[in-house]
Amino acid sequence: MPLLRVFPVLGVIVMVFSATMCVPLAVAWLMQDGAVRAFPLAIAATFALGLALRSAVFVVGRNVELQTRDGILLVGLVWTLLPFCASFPLLIHFAQEGTHFSFTDAYFEAMSGLTTTGATVLTGLDALPGSINLWRCFLQWLGGMGILVLAVAILPMLGVGGSQVFRAEATGPMKEAKLTPRITETAKGLWSVYCGLSLACALAYWLGGMSALDAWAHMFTTMSLGGLSTHDNSFGYFASPTLEWIAIVFMLIASGNFALYFVAVAKRSPARIVHDQEWRGTQVLLVGGSVFVAILLLARGVITDPLDALRTALFNVVSIGSTTGYATLDYTTWPVFAPLFMILLSGIATSAGSTGAGIKMARVLLLLKQARREMSRSIHPRMVRPVMLSGHAVDNGTLLSVLGFMLLYGGTIIGLTMTLLLSDMPFDTAFSAVVASVNNMGPGLGPVGPAGNFQGLSDFQTWVCTLAMLLGRLEILSFLVLFTPGFWRR
Amino acid sequence: MPLLRVFPVLGVIVMVFSATMCVPLAVAWLMQDGAVRAFPLAIAATFALGLALRSAVFVVGRNVELQTRDGILLVGLVWTLLPFCASFPLLIHFAQEGTHFSFTDAYFEAMSGLTTTGATVLTGLDALPGSINLWRCFLQWLGGMGILVLAVAILPMLGVGGSQVFRAEATGPMKEAKLTPRITETAKGLWSVYCGLSLACALAYWLGGMSALDAWAHMFTTMSLGGLSTHDNSFGYFASPTLEWIAIVFMLIASGNFALYFVAVAKRSPARIVHDQEWRGTQVLLVGGSVFVAILLLARGVITDPLDALRTALFNVVSIGSTTGYATLDYTTWPVFAPLFMILLSGIATSAGSTGAGIKMARVLLLLKQARREMSRSIHPRMVRPVMLSGHAVDNGTLLSVLGFMLLYGGTIIGLTMTLLLSDMPFDTAFSAVVASVNNMGPGLGPVGPAGNFQGLSDFQTWVCTLAMLLGRLEILSFLVLFTPGFWRR
Ligand SMILES: [K+]
Ligand SMILES: [K+]
Repeated sequence: MPLLRVFPVLGVIVMVFSATMCVPLAVAWLMQDGAVRAFPLAIAATFALGLALRSAVFVVGRNVELQTRDGILLVGLVWTLLPFCASFPLLIHFAQEGTHFSFTDAYFEAMSGLTTTGATVLTGLDALPGSINLWRCFLQWLGGMGILVLAVAILPMLGVGGSQVFRAEATGPMKEAKLTPRITETAKGLWSVYCGLSLACALAYWLGGMSALDAWAHMFTTMSLGGLSTHDNSFGYFASPTLEWIAIVFMLIASGNFALYFVAVAKRSPARIVHDQEWRGTQVLLVGGSVFVAILLLARGVITDPLDALRTALFNVVSIGSTTGYATLDYTTWPVFAPLFMILLSGIATSAGSTGAGIKMARVLLLLKQARREMSRSIHPRMVRPVMLSGHAVDNGTLLSVLGFMLLYGGTIIGLTMTLLLSDMPFDTAFSAVVASVNNMGPGLGPVGPAGNFQGLSDFQTWVCTLAMLLGRLEILSFLVLFTPGFWRR
Repeated sequence: MPLLRVFPVLGVIVMVFSATMCVPLAVAWLMQDGAVRAFPLAIAATFALGLALRSAVFVVGRNVELQTRDGILLVGLVWTLLPFCASFPLLIHFAQEGTHFSFTDAYFEAMSGLTTTGATVLTGLDALPGSINLWRCFLQWLGGMGILVLAVAILPMLGVGGSQVFRAEATGPMKEAKLTPRITETAKGLWSVYCGLSLACALAYWLGGMSALDAWAHMFTTMSLGGLSTHDNSFGYFASPTLEWIAIVFMLIASGNFALYFVAVAKRSPARIVHDQEWRGTQVLLVGGSVFVAILLLARGVITDPLDALRTALFNVVSIGSTTGYATLDYTTWPVFAPLFMILLSGIATSAGSTGAGIKMARVLLLLKQARREMSRSIHPRMVRPVMLSGHAVDNGTLLSVLGFMLLYGGTIIGLTMTLLLSDMPFDTAFSAVVASVNNMGPGLGPVGPAGNFQGLSDFQTWVCTLAMLLGRLEILSFLVLFTPGFWRR
């Protein structure tokens, strides 16, 4: 029974997760913000659930060696169960306040947090207790930690979407053959870089003029490319060019591969970063795309000051393209090319090993190389030239996984869009909501755009978007495989 | 100099093409419809152009053996030059009438004809001379002949998009190693089936109540899955359930692989058709999709009579899904799921070796099989199981070409849509115009939908759609490769 085998580990993860709720509890207690009664209850409930799962150890024994299949199952359970637990503080708080807040909405909000999507069904954020807002943002930062390990250690080991080619850069600390010690080693390295950059980001925001709470909250959602905010007006609330420049820099950093950063730090060689093809691809695409949009805005007279146009374009294009999802204004009023270009970038720009989602730049580079090879082959049919990434030849089987992943990604977007269309949602809203969710980016177009949010969706539509976020975060395949009969056959 | 080497063959093709204009000339002369002076001039100009190209034979000699690269170049030149010649009768006729008709529009209309797209920039079709209408429709039928040879004999030989796997069914008459005799043999077989079915279709339309001219014209655009009509109201003009049923049957037949039909006829084994996986896939998807839409129409109360709903859904879904593009009504007023589902079908439903466009069912089947294999592999990493199509194992290199083609197809749609967005076209119009053009299908959504046409587009937008039709028809790669430096290097 594979389900029971993973329960003890799952239980430990849930119990550790309950401990993270002490952070917003401390804030609530310090600020006396009215949510101080919500967190203890949520912590208790989560811890009890973890303990119950952990008790499966009496059935399966203490020394279960987890297999690949257990790993897939564990990942799927963690990413469906933690949002459930994460919704407890929200549900309890709103119940205590007497405000109606459905389980559908609470689960959506928590999933949007942990998957670093940043879409919200809440309005009146500025009036929410600081601890509740911090919890939403902290969820994204925690989700980011999970994603780093998932992307660098777990998915490549499972070979999902050809991601085994991405770990080339981080092979240093991963000589161990066993699952648990390898993941532990990798996690330590990645998390130290993540925490170091996070401290720098929080400090920069605070020095740039944010309140301490806002600095922490926005650091949480910048480093995780999450994009939730404590204000209804998102980053537009601050109306501060300084803060926008700081955000631009840290969003660009966070769009890179944290395993690459770790190796560069460990080997004291920052040049490695600049020489990495994927890193350069991500930066050139995001900055180059911003410059293009800035020129468009100037040419069409949307913004007249060049520096203003550059900063505004950089902030919004990098924010959407890096799957963060902050906004300083309603960019859907820009010429129609711009918002769709930004949404397109969100699907391809971020690096593997970042907290971003979508196809990832490494896969895009492989696709372009493969396309070039196909072109050559149609002219010189007998020519054999391998596709290279970071100096390693990539075999056809892996390339097939990479291209297959991209098609699965496209198929998921089409399938979920068609599902939303069945509920009579207009095409551009449905399409953009699905893309924004699958890319864990956040805002779409129309009612779900930067000037609106996901509040107006029906329960059915909300669940479709929740599923989209989950699929995007788990690179689709590793979640879908749970629903194949083959997975459950011995 | 590769360009000169192909000119003699190109010249012959252009001269033969000029001869096909005798058909509308004869009609114009019989009907005395006012276009009788347009065709002789067009024939003379086309013939002269062909003769000029043919004269290159004095430079390159008579016995040039064409190589793969010459084949690619020839295909590209044929599909850009013939629309140019095909536009002569239209340009001359409208000039003689004193009506303004730009070269951009004429080239678009001719390209739309020969690529069997069926989008039109003309209104007032019912008032046009019968011979001009017949020429537009005849162009589609001629284009269909070209496509059959292209799809079954030429592209597979060039290995475009993995299409070499599709010819498995038609290996009978293709034992010759040399390019010209092999193509000739294949063409003979395919065209005899095409002509036979065409005669049956024309007869059925005529017996069903169409005038002789309409029967021929609509046969031309049914068998080629072209969809042009002699009436502004398309098939809605006839308001005849009988004719709609006839069209449904022949559109379904024409969505299948003509090489398969030829083998079935040659071996006197109709069972081969039913046993072909791709043929079944195409039919099940088109008919099943129609039934689904019929149920949706009934459930939402759009149509109340079940048989009426079934026929209306079948006609419009099969028409769009098979890339024909006829309409009996404005289906964009149906629940939003239906038109987008139909547009989606147009990208995947038709068989390789039909006159349809898009990704083709064979590639979709390969993708599904590959997806299933990837799923199995993530559970059992060491399992090796080949992907099979029609009983043959497909190697990874070919699969890579197939998946690569699909991504190139997706990339083309995204790239051309973004280009149209730069001209401030609304997203759904731009997206649907590109998809309708790349799939050689015809109508999109909004202004370019079944109730409108492509007349309102700017010149820039018209050229983008013209390029989209050409790219879709030549399976993208075989045209794009002409623009790589590698192609022109010795
Ligand atoms: K986000
Ligand atoms: K068509």
